[in-house]
Formats: sequence, C-alpha cells, structure tokens
Amino acid sequence: MKSYRKELWFQTKLRREFINITTEVDRVIQDSGIQEGLILVNAMHITASVYINDDESGLLKDYERFLERLAPQDADYHHHLTGEDNGDAHIKRQIMGREVVVAITNGALDFGPWEQIFYAEFDGRRRKRVLVKVIGE
Amino acid sequence: MKSYRKELWFQTKLRREFINITTEVDRVIQDSGIQEGLILVNAMHITASVYINDDESGLLKDYERFLERLAPQDADYHHHLTGEDNGDAHIKRQIMGREVVVAITNGALDFGPWEQIFYAEFDGRRRKRVLVKVIGE
Amino acid sequence: MKSYRKELWFQTKLRREFINITTEVDRVIQDSGIQEGLILVNAMHITASVYINDDESGLLKDYERFLERLAPQDADYHHHLTGEDNGDAHIKRQIMGREVVVAITNGALDFGPWEQIFYAEFDGRRRKRVLVKVIGE
Repeated sequence: MKSYRKELWFQTKLRREFINITTEVDRVIQDSGIQEGLILVNAMHITASVYINDDESGLLKDYERFLERLAPQDADYHHHLTGEDNGDAHIKRQIMGREVVVAITNGALDFGPWEQIFYAEFDGRRRKRVLVKVIGE
Repeated sequence: MKSYRKELWFQTKLRREFINITTEVDRVIQDSGIQEGLILVNAMHITASVYINDDESGLLKDYERFLERLAPQDADYHHHLTGEDNGDAHIKRQIMGREVVVAITNGALDFGPWEQIFYAEFDGRRRKRVLVKVIGE
Repeated sequence: MKSYRKELWFQTKLRREFINITTEVDRVIQDSGIQEGLILVNAMHITASVYINDDESGLLKDYERFLERLAPQDADYHHHLTGEDNGDAHIKRQIMGREVVVAITNGALDFGPWEQIFYAEFDGRRRKRVLVKVIGE
C-alpha cells in the first residue's frame, strides 16, 4: 500500500467564497502515482467545507442564499461570547460537510459527468488549508 | 491491497424516491472477496444522495417533508436561469450527503443493528448511477 | 495493508449531548500501530452523529439551538406512528452526519489546529456505540 499527502492553501478575498479545486486534486493523484485507491480531501479548518457538486454560478448563489437563511451572519451566537464573530460559519460548514472521499480508478478521480470538488470558505480573508491524502496502489 | 469497483444503476418512477440498496452493496463486498477494509458508496450524480439510516416508511416521509420545507421544489433558484428546474435537488442532496464510507469486517458491512444504506433520488425519472469502490485485503 | 477495529461505548445522562472523543480515537491509532492510512469513525446508531468541529461550549449551544429549530423534539413526525418518539433525532443526525474519515500521518490524526472529533447524541440515556476502523501500514 502506498500513501501520499499534500496540503492546498487558500486565501480568499471575501468572507465567503466557493473555489473549484478539482484540477489541483487531480494533480495530487498524478503526483502520488497511485492507480487504484481512495482519496480524502478535507478542510483543515472548522469554518470551511469541502464538498462535491456542480460548477454553475447560479447554483453557487443558491447555496449562499440557502446557508445564509439557515445561519445568518448577523444573528446572535453563543460562540460570540468568546470574542469570535464566526458562529454562522461553524454552522454553515456543518451543513455542507468537512470532507469528501473519492474513488481513484485507473489513476484518476472516478467521477460522474458533473462532479466537481469545491472548497467552500465561510470565514476567509486569511490563509487556510485543505488536506489531501491518497492511499492505494 | 486489493480493490474492486462496481456501478449500480437506478431509474426511479418518481422525481423523489428513497431506495434501500444495502443488499446490493453487500453483494459487491462478496464479489470483491475483500475481508477487511473500507467501502465507499457514492452518488455519481449531483442531485442524489447516498446516506445511512433506518428503513421505516414514516421516517422516509419525515425526510421528504423536512427537505421540501428547507428547499421547496417550486421556489425560485438562480440555477434555473440555465434552463434547469432542479435547484431544490442540488440543495437537498447537500443536506443528505453524497457518500458513505463503511468498514468491512470479516467480509461484511460492519453495521449497527439498524443501519441501512439508501440511495436518495431528488431529480429522478432517468438513468443514474451509484459508485461502489472497495479497498482492503 | 493492516487493519484494526475498536468500538467505543457511550451512555449519556441527557437525551442530547456532545462528547469530545478525540483522545479515545487517538489511542485507537496508537493501539493499531498504523503510521500512514485512513481512520473511519462512525456512529453505529441512526440517531447519533460523529462530526469534527471546535470544542467550545458556546458553539455546542449554537448547534443545539440550530438543530432544535430545524427539527424540534416536540413536533409531529410520521415516524412516531411506530411508537417511537425520536423522529427529531433521525433528522438531526442527518444534518450533522454519520461519520468522519481522517488521514493518519506519522502515526497520528492529521489535523488542523482546531479540529476535534465529537460524538453527538440526539436520543441518549442508553448504551450506544461508535465504530473506529483503521486501515493503512
């Protein structure tokens, strides 16, 4: 069994952004040399998500509106008693998820026709990381 | 390390359906010959989910009602400007999740007493796929 | 490839509790002797979650309030026609997720600075289990 590890770094300009990272993840598989296995892609921070869905700008707006409705940025959060102001981001990240696990087949992401991997930032404007771990053969 | 791959195909009659796929997934493990490892089961389409919960008809109605309340089929979605009409399905799938990863122990799904794997379709009535990938020994 | 399996047992005093299990999971990795691989941590019951986020008491209250707003304990659920009273718990668990998959690097959880693994109980006061499965080398 082989394993391979890579960190991807991001610094968004906005508090909230959706970034398609499929190409970067694909490159990690190629660097790993692994042909058959699993790849884990996870946010290393707790106010960001990694998820898989369509790369369509209207849909990204729908996600933004949906998440803001469920956990508005300006609402009151117990978490803010610590001095933080990102209670909404901790909830948004739970809805969208921390990680994805994808099959690797023939040295590539084993994807359906529209699957794309996104890094979703809910409390950005600072350097944050995504972990990519590959295991297989 | 061994690996094994199988696609499961579905075409639902309704736009939204919940299908228990536990038996099919179990059969893939048997076909793989893998005794100890992990199995990934994921929707290959972005308007469907794979998740684990109880196979109880009332609960499935509760999920349907809950998801329709959060993301109604008939609401306005930016995504519909593309000509699509499934904005709700992209959101419902995010709530229920894309994939499950299950332990394989002694050649079988390592499950608690009530765990069942479901394919949740939110934009059906056409042929769509679930990917099953097994790794282990 | 090596694999290792351990069950963690919990019995909460309250119906709903959040328990930080990071130390227990770390110990399983040490017991496994695995240096590089993946670890799966999942609730074996369908009214509980395993998720990763911050260990901050205000945030846990925010999660509790958020989940209770989306799926109130005292609402009507079709699932209750079976005699059960935990329809809310089946929904809360779907929002927070069943499982996490974490990378193991150099024999430890490969975590960002604030990542902590939680067992979230939504229908407690009885003995319930979490499964930990490690694969790697």
